[in-house]
Amino acid sequence: MSDLLYETHRAVFERAQQACRERHCWSPFPEMPAKYPDAEVAQTRGRQAFEAQRGQRFELDQPGPLRWVGEEVSPYTQQALGIHYPQADIEQLFDAAEAAMPAWADAGIETRIGVLMQALDVIYREHLFEVAQAVMHTAGQSFNMAYAGSGVNALDRGIEALVYAEQAMRAVTPQARWARRFGPSDIVLDKTYRLVPRGVAVCFACASFPTWNAWPSMLASLATGNAVIVKPHPATVLPMAITVRVFRQVLRAAGFDPNLVTLALDTVDDPIGKLLVQHPRTAIVDFTGSVRFGQWVERHAHPALAFTETAGCNTVVLTAADDLDAALRSLATTLCMFSAQMCTSPQNIYVPREGVHTPAGTVPLDEVARRLAAAVESLTADPKKAAMILATLQSPQTLALLKHLRDQGAQRGQVLLEPRAYAHPEFPDARTSTPLMLQLGTQDRDLYGEERFGPVSFVIACADADDALDQATRDVREFGGLTAFLYATDEAFIARAERAYARAGAQLTINLTGAMPLNFAAAYSDYHVTGLNPAGNASLTNLAFVASRFCISQSRRPARAST
Amino acid sequence: MSDLLYETHRAVFERAQQACRERHCWSPFPEMPAKYPDAEVAQTRGRQAFEAQRGQRFELDQPGPLRWVGEEVSPYTQQALGIHYPQADIEQLFDAAEAAMPAWADAGIETRIGVLMQALDVIYREHLFEVAQAVMHTAGQSFNMAYAGSGVNALDRGIEALVYAEQAMRAVTPQARWARRFGPSDIVLDKTYRLVPRGVAVCFACASFPTWNAWPSMLASLATGNAVIVKPHPATVLPMAITVRVFRQVLRAAGFDPNLVTLALDTVDDPIGKLLVQHPRTAIVDFTGSVRFGQWVERHAHPALAFTETAGCNTVVLTAADDLDAALRSLATTLCMFSAQMCTSPQNIYVPREGVHTPAGTVPLDEVARRLAAAVESLTADPKKAAMILATLQSPQTLALLKHLRDQGAQRGQVLLEPRAYAHPEFPDARTSTPLMLQLGTQDRDLYGEERFGPVSFVIACADADDALDQATRDVREFGGLTAFLYATDEAFIARAERAYARAGAQLTINLTGAMPLNFAAAYSDYHVTGLNPAGNASLTNLAFVASRFCISQSRRPARAST
Repeated sequence: MSDLLYETHRAVFERAQQACRERHCWSPFPEMPAKYPDAEVAQTRGRQAFEAQRGQRFELDQPGPLRWVGEEVSPYTQQALGIHYPQADIEQLFDAAEAAMPAWADAGIETRIGVLMQALDVIYREHLFEVAQAVMHTAGQSFNMAYAGSGVNALDRGIEALVYAEQAMRAVTPQARWARRFGPSDIVLDKTYRLVPRGVAVCFACASFPTWNAWPSMLASLATGNAVIVKPHPATVLPMAITVRVFRQVLRAAGFDPNLVTLALDTVDDPIGKLLVQHPRTAIVDFTGSVRFGQWVERHAHPALAFTETAGCNTVVLTAADDLDAALRSLATTLCMFSAQMCTSPQNIYVPREGVHTPAGTVPLDEVARRLAAAVESLTADPKKAAMILATLQSPQTLALLKHLRDQGAQRGQVLLEPRAYAHPEFPDARTSTPLMLQLGTQDRDLYGEERFGPVSFVIACADADDALDQATRDVREFGGLTAFLYATDEAFIARAERAYARAGAQLTINLTGAMPLNFAAAYSDYHVTGLNPAGNASLTNLAFVASRFCISQSRRPARAST
Repeated sequence: MSDLLYETHRAVFERAQQACRERHCWSPFPEMPAKYPDAEVAQTRGRQAFEAQRGQRFELDQPGPLRWVGEEVSPYTQQALGIHYPQADIEQLFDAAEAAMPAWADAGIETRIGVLMQALDVIYREHLFEVAQAVMHTAGQSFNMAYAGSGVNALDRGIEALVYAEQAMRAVTPQARWARRFGPSDIVLDKTYRLVPRGVAVCFACASFPTWNAWPSMLASLATGNAVIVKPHPATVLPMAITVRVFRQVLRAAGFDPNLVTLALDTVDDPIGKLLVQHPRTAIVDFTGSVRFGQWVERHAHPALAFTETAGCNTVVLTAADDLDAALRSLATTLCMFSAQMCTSPQNIYVPREGVHTPAGTVPLDEVARRLAAAVESLTADPKKAAMILATLQSPQTLALLKHLRDQGAQRGQVLLEPRAYAHPEFPDARTSTPLMLQLGTQDRDLYGEERFGPVSFVIACADADDALDQATRDVREFGGLTAFLYATDEAFIARAERAYARAGAQLTINLTGAMPLNFAAAYSDYHVTGLNPAGNASLTNLAFVASRFCISQSRRPARAST
């Protein structure tokens, strides 16, 4: 049965292996919802499944149920979803996870890969639009982003993790015959090398982008033989609850213990995160969330392994452009995308005080700032367009942050763009805000010198291009940075910037204009997080993300009596 | 020049790659000193080089010299070696290491591998017997072990680390072209993937077996572009000082900054270990040494990566043997080897209370214990043989430990074998002891429930075979275990034991008798340390040992204007 699953998915898996080697553009999934097979029916079913779940208990036959909990509020309606999930006794989850592991670890690599590919395939074929609705009404993403970024792109990241897990495991031969002369005798040993999973993994999923990191983390742990306890943010449970239920169903159908994947829940008032990280039976922690808690995880997870992806003070260096309007349009789009609630959203935009060089001459800093703000405003003026690109604010705290920063900015510098709620055409009660943009100087670093989560960006005046690069890469080193964006024409400066950002560890996009969001990260091609700065210690996906999730135990015994 | 070095060593390197894939027996080096090219001359030169160094300053042209330090005492003469080494200012070592890295990181993979293969080759061709003398007169190993275990086998472990580093780096394509349609436009990006070293690595070397772990650790860090500060134990500096000097010479000759490899020294009274581990510029820590400090390192190294190999409470389960005398001889040999001052030496020998099954009937526990003690005694009765196998005690503290354990053992159980100094035929003042063997019950676990470093072992009476296996694997899980040894004939029991030790994470040797030391670990074939228990978190050598020592930074830019 399980090996049949591998055969079913072999062609896609081998194609994914090739893509990871060559890093070209590929996906087995259509990225436009409209191209999904029988799209309208599927979308309707997905919406119906979500609607049917509202106000109901989410049935999950996992061990140790204690009580029903659920605090989710849709950013689109600002109403409680009313879904209640079984909160399980943590010890029973660990007991069940540990009991489930041996048979799973003993199954071969191909068997595990086959089952996990099947789980991703079932999510894609049967639950993708339900997941998309769940992501919309918890994380607050637009439908298109929920389908693509939290749907097919996240499935791609999952397959990618399987590719690297397989590569790391295949590097270990399962057996060997070893023969050597010792003094008068020949010793011939048969050696067996076993891949031993680390133990129980705890996978944290964040509130604003739950699946994109959690799926590859789950798959990296499961592929290497571990069990996974999924701990979603209490604001965004449903996407991961659907995920857990699918994995459990597929595991059971393949003859494995469904308790390899379980759900651990907490509430805002009674969090269990630290308890899980420091639980003596936790062997692996995958964490996506705030810089602060991520660093706590890295520091306190021992002896568990910790893989973190937090957030970044992502920077832009804007010194010259062949087509300044095109550059500003691209920046504006990226600043607006999901109201900058992505770990890859730019925040700090460094511009030389003298302005930006263009073929038509140098455009002064103030004009650049004004035109960038105008570009953002024009993207958000039409509520229908605003809804597509800005979507909603995941957390009400973001509104308070915007107000605070706006007031600070007005005192210290200039408010380039005032944030305001926009009226979502479909959801009149949606929690929305257009972006806040501030113009500041480098003396205001206390204001922009950390990730300000939400639709806020800073245009920061610098001495010159080199100062802009220095300031920007310092932010990356000190506060973390995942992405970086450069507009420049001097090739020597570009080369310096590539080198400086490479050392600081932010993935750099140079002089990109056009229809692609600047911060788009393609599975199988773009590495996400370098591990070189406080934005996280793990990269999606390289060998280091998977290779330590299993260990190698060997046994050896004489093949025959020595002669 | 550097690429020539890769070509020079390509055939050996490719052969090593094959060995790592297939895990058969191979080495480019002769394991017997007598088979070394022109062995007698080389041995004489090595001894002369060592003798010429005694009482002298060890010249090392590295930055920041503060004063001359040196506390080494030869376990063979119990006289100070009188060698003084330049103690460097730590900040200057970090400054120099950081300055040296960029050009090294920019050099290609093959260039770095070529230079590092050359360094190993220079150690082999020009310094091997000098290193062997240095190991003898610091760690206290026998000449044969110093040549093999601390010489050629350690070089093999170094090459092995290069093989895995190369494999992990090759998994990242240096560039890709990526093309996709976004709405109306085709986006075509050229992407560049850079391997970025983590930073400055600190490599701790231990007192009793300095090179075997330190060489592969250094090479893993250097191959992936990092600089290495080597911090030897103050009792055993010379082998690593020679190593550092060779690496510096080879790096300089190849056109690189020699400060990629430097030596940091401390004294027993004024240790710098914790300072180095927690230094803000330390990016990687490799540690070999005590369990206690190893666990401190794992817990406190953050944000540096920590790779540890400490020590083990290594266990034997002895339930049945086709040839009990052969099994006891093998055990006795392994208990004596370098006075059990190896992290792979067995310590806790679990025997069912009813005795050991043999073809001639069950041999009672007391008789098994007596015969094992007699086998140890017969190996150590002749001083010449004792010198070959026991060598010396590295530390005077070991004598105090033996006395303490002997007295405790006499009160609680039975002293099977009293330790005594033996007269070394060449070095009458050598610090020596024959092994202490105690017979105890499982109620005495406080006595044997940790690694007791030195020539001491415990025969422990158990309820039955299953109890023996439970006790032994519990030791591994709780106190750490690198190796394990099983003598049994029931195949179902053997299978259970293989599974139990695999989960506990000790490398198991089953029913081995004959001329091979039971704890012999072969480079390219035997994995050393699993990472599953307190004996360490790193394995020599798997992908996890190398893959996180570098990160991947990318940049991407349009290949041409979008259409």
